[in-house]
Amino acid sequence: MTLLAVGSVALDSVETPQDSRNDVLGGSAVFFSYAASYFTPVNLVGVVGEDWPEAHTELLRSRKVDTAGLKIEAGKETFRWRGRYLPNMNDRETLELHLNVFGEFNPIVPEQFRNSDYLFLANGVPQVQLEVLSQVANPKLVVADTMDIWITEHTDDLKLLLGKIDGLVLNDAEAKLLTGEQNIIAAGKKILELGPRFAVVKKGEHGAMYFGNDATYVLPAYPTDQVVDPTGAGDSFAGGMMGYITEQDCFDAATMKKALAYGVLVASFNVEDFSLDQMRRIERSHIDERMREFETMLSF
Amino acid sequence: MTLLAVGSVALDSVETPQDSRNDVLGGSAVFFSYAASYFTPVNLVGVVGEDWPEAHTELLRSRKVDTAGLKIEAGKETFRWRGRYLPNMNDRETLELHLNVFGEFNPIVPEQFRNSDYLFLANGVPQVQLEVLSQVANPKLVVADTMDIWITEHTDDLKLLLGKIDGLVLNDAEAKLLTGEQNIIAAGKKILELGPRFAVVKKGEHGAMYFGNDATYVLPAYPTDQVVDPTGAGDSFAGGMMGYITEQDCFDAATMKKALAYGVLVASFNVEDFSLDQMRRIERSHIDERMREFETMLSF
Repeated sequence: MTLLAVGSVALDSVETPQDSRNDVLGGSAVFFSYAASYFTPVNLVGVVGEDWPEAHTELLRSRKVDTAGLKIEAGKETFRWRGRYLPNMNDRETLELHLNVFGEFNPIVPEQFRNSDYLFLANGVPQVQLEVLSQVANPKLVVADTMDIWITEHTDDLKLLLGKIDGLVLNDAEAKLLTGEQNIIAAGKKILELGPRFAVVKKGEHGAMYFGNDATYVLPAYPTDQVVDPTGAGDSFAGGMMGYITEQDCFDAATMKKALAYGVLVASFNVEDFSLDQMRRIERSHIDERMREFETMLSF
Repeated sequence: MTLLAVGSVALDSVETPQDSRNDVLGGSAVFFSYAASYFTPVNLVGVVGEDWPEAHTELLRSRKVDTAGLKIEAGKETFRWRGRYLPNMNDRETLELHLNVFGEFNPIVPEQFRNSDYLFLANGVPQVQLEVLSQVANPKLVVADTMDIWITEHTDDLKLLLGKIDGLVLNDAEAKLLTGEQNIIAAGKKILELGPRFAVVKKGEHGAMYFGNDATYVLPAYPTDQVVDPTGAGDSFAGGMMGYITEQDCFDAATMKKALAYGVLVASFNVEDFSLDQMRRIERSHIDERMREFETMLSF
């Protein structure tokens, strides 16, 4: 089975109360792809500038990520984000945002990716997400991420998209914004009225919730006290989830729950260091070990 | 086995965005006792004024709560709290607070309660909690609750108390305040350095965490979208937890985890209506039914 991911590829600069990093590998499609690569090969579509270090492409390729869809635009610069985390390590402020080449991202899905079975539309302009969707032949499952600016500024396009996808992944504040509901559970259920068959609400350090027509459930986050850099947590969560679904080639209720748990666990590794540094140190066996611990923790 | 609860007994006035109630039954020791009564008889120690409706005492007695320690002070008024919940139903503002008779609460534990096996010191002045503790002969397990004002204003007394109790129950913001740690998990672990063998951190709609020398774990809240009034959620959580521990007469690791789960579930009923209204409608069987659902939800 093949998984296609389309979204941002970036160079992040991150400041935390303890430490900082400049121009490190980031972007929603990168965190997603790397996280998913523990479970399945990934086809990546994105765009970077000529400042893009070739070593980053090599790293992705070494992880079964097919970068044939990663376009390098001559004379342009890669998307850059600079942010600072507040001492609680949950809230952050954006210090600089340079869309650069990502601002004109007009993704062309390579011919050989157009029959991908599973599709993840990482956070981006809904119109672009729609265009990507139109280029993929007949995917078994399409899941999209979104964020506040698209909810408030591109409402019509987003609603159109919601009518065409199977699942929506977003955080709790975004779910409330999208539905006007203040209670997360009411918000999650209301998303189903907008089109998707299921919604996954990410709650950061508090885990994630699933809302489907047949089930509502919540999983806590894996309790790690080594929170070094939360950047990419939501995308690595989605990567773990979609990677497992693709590996299993199944998205029935039981598989979805396990997929959510894998998402939570991959994200727990991701936040333990800057960029992809902790994820680069681990293998699937580390995730499965944490899975056994997680299952034990939740049995009583 | 016997469980002794000492703390506030109050008349609450609650405003939510949808509805309101005036002078309804409340107070930390009341929510705690009622919640614990599904599992075990409870000995209650508290104080009220002559405005206290006898019907409230009758209700507690009907639930195996021994009210011999509920003192009625002539010529005084019962503790009253008036609060308003913000639309998110998590944050609230206190509109009025009249300690009244609770301001001079000097609890005398009745002779027949002094051999109680399990003791819960509900949220209150640490010095008063210490005095109660000195009156109980040889409890198997002592658990206390506390809050921000005691952490910042009565630090020395609280630290003295922490050296004498087995477990501390408090919410996430309080755990951070007490330890100076911003990460909940780091905060929970640090509490153990202050004396208690275990700490339970309540996270409201996000569930609860347990920190012991041998284990750290987290349970999500039961996902209910019927959040009518969160008042007493933390106390009913503690009541469910301590009630189950007392019923089992055991507090090993496995029992503690199940106790936490019962706490989460009793609290989930409590928030589904004002005051004790929803808890009055249910029996132990309803809690056990939700427990089976909760166990299934957390299996994958």
